[in-house]
Amino acid sequence: MSQTIERDSAANAQLALLLDVGSAPKPGNVDRDHDLSELRMEHFFAGAIGAGEGLRQAAEGSAVGTAFERAVAGMSNQAGGNTQFGCLLLLIPLVRAAGVEDMTLTSAGVRSVVESTTVADAADFYRGFEYVDVAVEDPPEGMAALDVRRGTDAIPTLRDRDMTLYDVMSASIDDGNATEWTTGFERTFETATAIAADSGPLPNRISRAFVTRLAQDEDTLVRTEHGSDVAAEVKQRAQAARGNPEAIAKLDESFVEAGINPGTTADLLVAATFVALEQENGVTI
Amino acid sequence: MSQTIERDSAANAQLALLLDVGSAPKPGNVDRDHDLSELRMEHFFAGAIGAGEGLRQAAEGSAVGTAFERAVAGMSNQAGGNTQFGCLLLLIPLVRAAGVEDMTLTSAGVRSVVESTTVADAADFYRGFEYVDVAVEDPPEGMAALDVRRGTDAIPTLRDRDMTLYDVMSASIDDGNATEWTTGFERTFETATAIAADSGPLPNRISRAFVTRLAQDEDTLVRTEHGSDVAAEVKQRAQAARGNPEAIAKLDESFVEAGINPGTTADLLVAATFVALEQENGVTI
Repeated sequence: MSQTIERDSAANAQLALLLDVGSAPKPGNVDRDHDLSELRMEHFFAGAIGAGEGLRQAAEGSAVGTAFERAVAGMSNQAGGNTQFGCLLLLIPLVRAAGVEDMTLTSAGVRSVVESTTVADAADFYRGFEYVDVAVEDPPEGMAALDVRRGTDAIPTLRDRDMTLYDVMSASIDDGNATEWTTGFERTFETATAIAADSGPLPNRISRAFVTRLAQDEDTLVRTEHGSDVAAEVKQRAQAARGNPEAIAKLDESFVEAGINPGTTADLLVAATFVALEQENGVTI
Repeated sequence: MSQTIERDSAANAQLALLLDVGSAPKPGNVDRDHDLSELRMEHFFAGAIGAGEGLRQAAEGSAVGTAFERAVAGMSNQAGGNTQFGCLLLLIPLVRAAGVEDMTLTSAGVRSVVESTTVADAADFYRGFEYVDVAVEDPPEGMAALDVRRGTDAIPTLRDRDMTLYDVMSASIDDGNATEWTTGFERTFETATAIAADSGPLPNRISRAFVTRLAQDEDTLVRTEHGSDVAAEVKQRAQAARGNPEAIAKLDESFVEAGINPGTTADLLVAATFVALEQENGVTI
């Protein structure tokens, strides 16, 4: 038999995006078991495939902003809306860090990538919001001119204030993805370790890690869409259901009915799955 | 809003591979609703992602054999075994034909691609069998030296007989994929038209077209694994169940129990889905 050819980092990132939507149950998310009304599995497939070129640019060493904007532009070519914007915000610097030759993907490595971002990267990040509607909180005080919903209109202000993409993430308060950017992707690596230490088919591990994560941190998207009380309740209900398949199935049903979609937790799981696929002695399929 | 970026042909081919396993019911196949014992959805995800580089080579104009061997080598890097060998045998020439600039993908275009294959393409095709176990029939009389299971050992005979890959396909009797190669992909284009003319989400259309196809032609893989009688019976049962969701669900259950996996019909559906995604006024997601 001839030797098969290994997946590169960009391919592992795409595979992580697919495994996320191919796992179940992931209470409230589109998963293998069910779609949501206007958001379906095939939209996530098209998003993962469309993001490929941007992910390959990141693996080859493109600037984080350039690769991110390209990934989002490709991801958005489907009718489901924002499928994987947050996932790509985490994946692009991770892929960039993994793409450096002869380096193991580490927290320090990705920290160095995000800390090296520039004002141009920040401008490209804001351009990303022009392709798709992203649910976000109102900006903190003094940041109205940099509301991401302004898209490219915010770019002159970025330049005036000399803000890099890392600075933008540091100014974001209580956002799950920004927290990863500013803490060396601490929870991402922690969850990757949990996935690697678990056993059985990878989608089952992802499902379990999703519920564990949901029980640990309030989901940013749930808070944005439903408020703090609901986000706190979701966390408590995940804590109560954790480890009990029947309770988790009920949680899923109840979240879907109430329109509760813990999307930021899904973003983290995608990033963690990528790290688990990349690490030596990591997971195989 | 900025313009999203369209998928290229290689990306559409990967998306077709994913949509195939993301559709259900597809009686007897791994589909969104169920895995088979040792063959699971994530193996198909990894196969589709791993095939990407070979598909991109085909889109950029590489020789059919070179691109095919690369696609198979990447596809095979997962533990499920042969997930998409037959699909790639159809997709590679289709992607090559679609990759020619400013040309619409047509039957004549892909016919020209397959008729232009060389002895070197045939050799690379045989090399493809070194990466993964493929279920095939015994070769026809006089072709024992060219049994594909001989892999690279068959290459000197190919050269002695000056056989191109098109010649190899022409010598294959009653093989569903070889029939596409030698008939201008007639059933592929016919099925693509049916998918485009249907309505509703694409995975539902694929599921319906799968059953229709299964009712029209005996599946090569079923015949190879279970004999002619079973293949004929599968076709008849698909005819009886067609259009009746309950009967199709029962068919699926019964096929899975009996280990009947109509894989060659799935290959054709992937090719047809690709054509439907490529054609102008074709399907969108």
